[in-house]
Amino acid sequence: MQIAMIDDRMVPYDKLEPVYLDRAFYFGDGVYEVLRSYNGRIFALDDHLRRFSNSIIAIGINTVDMNDVRDRVLESFEKAEISNARIYFHITRGSAPRAHSWTDYIKPNFFLTVTELPDDSKAKAEGIAVSTFPDWRWKRCDIKSLNLLANVLARQDAAMKGCEEAILIDENGFITEGAASSFFAVRNGTMQTAPLTCNILPSITRDYVLRSAGVIDIPAIEKSVTIDQAAKADELFIAVTTKDIVPVVKFDEAVISDGRPGLNTKALIEQFKKFIHAAEKPAVSR
Amino acid sequence: MQIAMIDDRMVPYDKLEPVYLDRAFYFGDGVYEVLRSYNGRIFALDDHLRRFSNSIIAIGINTVDMNDVRDRVLESFEKAEISNARIYFHITRGSAPRAHSWTDYIKPNFFLTVTELPDDSKAKAEGIAVSTFPDWRWKRCDIKSLNLLANVLARQDAAMKGCEEAILIDENGFITEGAASSFFAVRNGTMQTAPLTCNILPSITRDYVLRSAGVIDIPAIEKSVTIDQAAKADELFIAVTTKDIVPVVKFDEAVISDGRPGLNTKALIEQFKKFIHAAEKPAVSR
Repeated sequence: MQIAMIDDRMVPYDKLEPVYLDRAFYFGDGVYEVLRSYNGRIFALDDHLRRFSNSIIAIGINTVDMNDVRDRVLESFEKAEISNARIYFHITRGSAPRAHSWTDYIKPNFFLTVTELPDDSKAKAEGIAVSTFPDWRWKRCDIKSLNLLANVLARQDAAMKGCEEAILIDENGFITEGAASSFFAVRNGTMQTAPLTCNILPSITRDYVLRSAGVIDIPAIEKSVTIDQAAKADELFIAVTTKDIVPVVKFDEAVISDGRPGLNTKALIEQFKKFIHAAEKPAVSR
Repeated sequence: MQIAMIDDRMVPYDKLEPVYLDRAFYFGDGVYEVLRSYNGRIFALDDHLRRFSNSIIAIGINTVDMNDVRDRVLESFEKAEISNARIYFHITRGSAPRAHSWTDYIKPNFFLTVTELPDDSKAKAEGIAVSTFPDWRWKRCDIKSLNLLANVLARQDAAMKGCEEAILIDENGFITEGAASSFFAVRNGTMQTAPLTCNILPSITRDYVLRSAGVIDIPAIEKSVTIDQAAKADELFIAVTTKDIVPVVKFDEAVISDGRPGLNTKALIEQFKKFIHAAEKPAVSR
């Protein structure tokens, strides 16, 4: 008789609940998004849904109705009544006996959580310390997939060093991005971040940072930063959906400038807030 | 109220079953093994447990008793009473609210299945067709982790082309291994396979193939094979736990030799059988 074991409990294989046959479990075979709300309004929902759609197509899931996804996000967010919420959702290819390839008959699984976002005002005001780690990720980081073990190991290394984020370094000594954020340097008045390639997530927050720089006339270039350039930069910051812009004041052992958030970084945070406020107005809501 | 949604069903976040908070789900944060039995006896159990222990340590799970794992494998295999079984098991870091880094208090989750192995005699006798695909995997393929989306996409591409396995090609045109197998060429009487690096799984079947070659005096070198060399090789085969050695008779568009399994490959299959028979004797059992 075919058998399964969950921890120390034996069950007939045929009686396994579908969740135990979810391909996310065996292969990380799915893609995800993280959204946030500010004061009761979801920020950049359409941007996230567009990227999610791209991820889904990139891994060959062809049966997802993006309007359903949107409805589920809005419905659960409304029900949760959390003003500053983190909305996580993923779609996996579905549940099936373990085999690498899949059939057309498999039905995707949807999963979502709406949870309270912790306060990040201290990190924003004082800046954070980051540490570097080799970029061990796969070659399709443009897909926001559930294969995140490299990110996990990098972030844990950072945590052990008392740092808030791991900055990933490729084989040539260039910074790709953070384990769960985009990375920016300001050098001689110019903002610099890695260009979008298959090694980088097309971060939506990154996009809003670039737009913010445009609005307040900070010159920006999309060119990878080296470890050395970062350690000697005038300002550093990361950008991530759940926290938008967070200043970086320590990079491995190097204190950045005077160890306090830089002027350009602060100006970008202020401009970013204007995008947030604009999105809070009913005119641009659903 | 914090909320979760499973497909179209809303549930309070706090009421989620632990399986929905398994880090395998969010990050592929776990490692696995696949074993097989021949005629009622598990093959190379100790080798697999040793590799599993290495994988566990490599991702920083420190609280697993390998004797427990061994006991669970043997107990479930005995209970299943399947003569030719595939035994899959994984350990994930545990269940916790989604956050990249982890705490020391997390308890690993164990999961195992014992299922019938399908008959592979046709593939063994006639050989299989394989196709090539870029090696998109992460940079720590020496760890047998649950981050397998690159393997899944490669294998699906192969399936769409009517092939049984995808052979992964690195950025320099060298073959690393199959999506779920080791890869071997025989060229001018010498067997050749990629050396063990961080880009390759330390395959146990690969090890038995090398030992087999030693016993029957086939010279072997551990040096990566190029696409061109493979297409023009005298013989090709893959090696994988569930099927040991399987001849490859077509490589992309190239028919290998006369399109039938080669003599060296057949000799290796026969020698491998001797290892299997030796393992079936009670003297080397537990």
